[in-house]
Amino acid sequence: MYILGGTSAKNVAQNLANKIQQPLLQATYKRFPDDEFYVRVLDDIAGEDVLIVQTAYPDPKIVELLLMQDAVHDAGAKKITVVLPYFGYSRQDKKFEEGEAISSRAVAQHISMHADCVITVDPHKEHILKFFSVPAYSCSAVSTIAQYLKEKNIDFILAPDKGAKDRAKEAATLINCEYDYLEKTRIDGTTVKITPKKLDARGKHVAIIDDIISTGGTMANSIKELKKQGAKTVSVACTHGLFVGGAKEKLLSADCDEIISTDTIETEFSKVSAADCIAELLLKTLPHIKN
Amino acid sequence: MYILGGTSAKNVAQNLANKIQQPLLQATYKRFPDDEFYVRVLDDIAGEDVLIVQTAYPDPKIVELLLMQDAVHDAGAKKITVVLPYFGYSRQDKKFEEGEAISSRAVAQHISMHADCVITVDPHKEHILKFFSVPAYSCSAVSTIAQYLKEKNIDFILAPDKGAKDRAKEAATLINCEYDYLEKTRIDGTTVKITPKKLDARGKHVAIIDDIISTGGTMANSIKELKKQGAKTVSVACTHGLFVGGAKEKLLSADCDEIISTDTIETEFSKVSAADCIAELLLKTLPHIKN
Repeated sequence: MYILGGTSAKNVAQNLANKIQQPLLQATYKRFPDDEFYVRVLDDIAGEDVLIVQTAYPDPKIVELLLMQDAVHDAGAKKITVVLPYFGYSRQDKKFEEGEAISSRAVAQHISMHADCVITVDPHKEHILKFFSVPAYSCSAVSTIAQYLKEKNIDFILAPDKGAKDRAKEAATLINCEYDYLEKTRIDGTTVKITPKKLDARGKHVAIIDDIISTGGTMANSIKELKKQGAKTVSVACTHGLFVGGAKEKLLSADCDEIISTDTIETEFSKVSAADCIAELLLKTLPHIKN
Repeated sequence: MYILGGTSAKNVAQNLANKIQQPLLQATYKRFPDDEFYVRVLDDIAGEDVLIVQTAYPDPKIVELLLMQDAVHDAGAKKITVVLPYFGYSRQDKKFEEGEAISSRAVAQHISMHADCVITVDPHKEHILKFFSVPAYSCSAVSTIAQYLKEKNIDFILAPDKGAKDRAKEAATLINCEYDYLEKTRIDGTTVKITPKKLDARGKHVAIIDDIISTGGTMANSIKELKKQGAKTVSVACTHGLFVGGAKEKLLSADCDEIISTDTIETEFSKVSAADCIAELLLKTLPHIKN
């Protein structure tokens, strides 16, 4: 099996190649003066299984992925597995209002055109895997994040809301600490109080764990509240760190003690690699690659 | 028939609606803080024929088009015709080297997923229409450009090279003037002389016509040479004005007298509309829309 890493997943592709001990393909990527992408695979892959690794975000990287798939398919690859460390558009996963595009379905259908199998990490909702017209699997980077947090003497893990508490539970179990979720209570017409449902943050080292940090607004508010309630340190961790709209500044000015993310989107906060869980899933679902 | 104009083809869609007297659909387009698009069609289009108008360039607009198609298809449109005023990636129309993606084929295949018919304007090469898996047609904006140039007392029309001389001939016939093409002659190891093959530019009002102006480098050199040879004025005209990489500055500093483009890509030089030739083709191929 060969691995083709796109420009938005260099780190994951390299780490994955090391972990599953399969070779990376040589390829040329460039952009023309009008910003159009150019993709060329330099090795002969006729009859070979190819793993294409590319984060499907933002838009230009989605188009680059479609071109990578075209090149690999046209070169006669036997089986194409597409690994999407982050699956963009996953939050528009249904029609919230009549007439809307279901964007994650649209992206999934197009990626399915030249794919035999798709793998993604911590999709925002599990049902979006069904939008692919080929078998699609997900894995979770929570255990990798938990391993990192274990070194940090965290007292308890918080989910940002009730719906996300399973993720906090999973991390807490691995770290062997308590977990809880943050509850918003409207205390008068306008003020909202954010507190852990059961636990007391006073004097504690706390970590909030979520799947995606986008603009970081809610996260920043939660950090401020927890600090007010006497938390000693508050770290935030996520699988997909988009950090858009001044998220970094918001989090730091809320007195966040550490920001942790995987490399599904490569940023300065990518402290652990999503390649760990992807490799584990690959070795489980595609046992022949061990050869 | 209803017309849905995307954010990269507002002008063409509006002009087209006026020309073929069919209503524009109401739609919401926005971008989330992470730059992902949101598309919602506000009118009921179940069972209706819909014309989606969107320039497939640059990458984010291609993704927006795929979302528009998803929304229109999902809303139960009867027939979807996709109008691509400019078909991006059309210059990567074959494998120039082994292992390359054929980008225009990839884009065409994805656009075909939710389309019953595709229409584009002056494709860079005619064979790219075959990359669509649905019937695809092209029309030419040359006559619209020629009508504009007719008012300008042009003495002759030039093609930038021999391969493009049919376009110059077509424009010249409509204007009722002469035409020629520019020939490059290497006069020593490094210097290249660019001159009209037969005609003499001295004292003449000349227009160079091409399908695409991208970085404008060759065009700027041609203008300089023609001015050196005594041309009174040199205008440049194209269907698709990308004007990237400082093209405007290059053309103006080469002493270009006028830059003319259609609105397949909307810029300050969009002086004529591609809607004219699209409307003509539509009325010919879909005569029922006259009702």
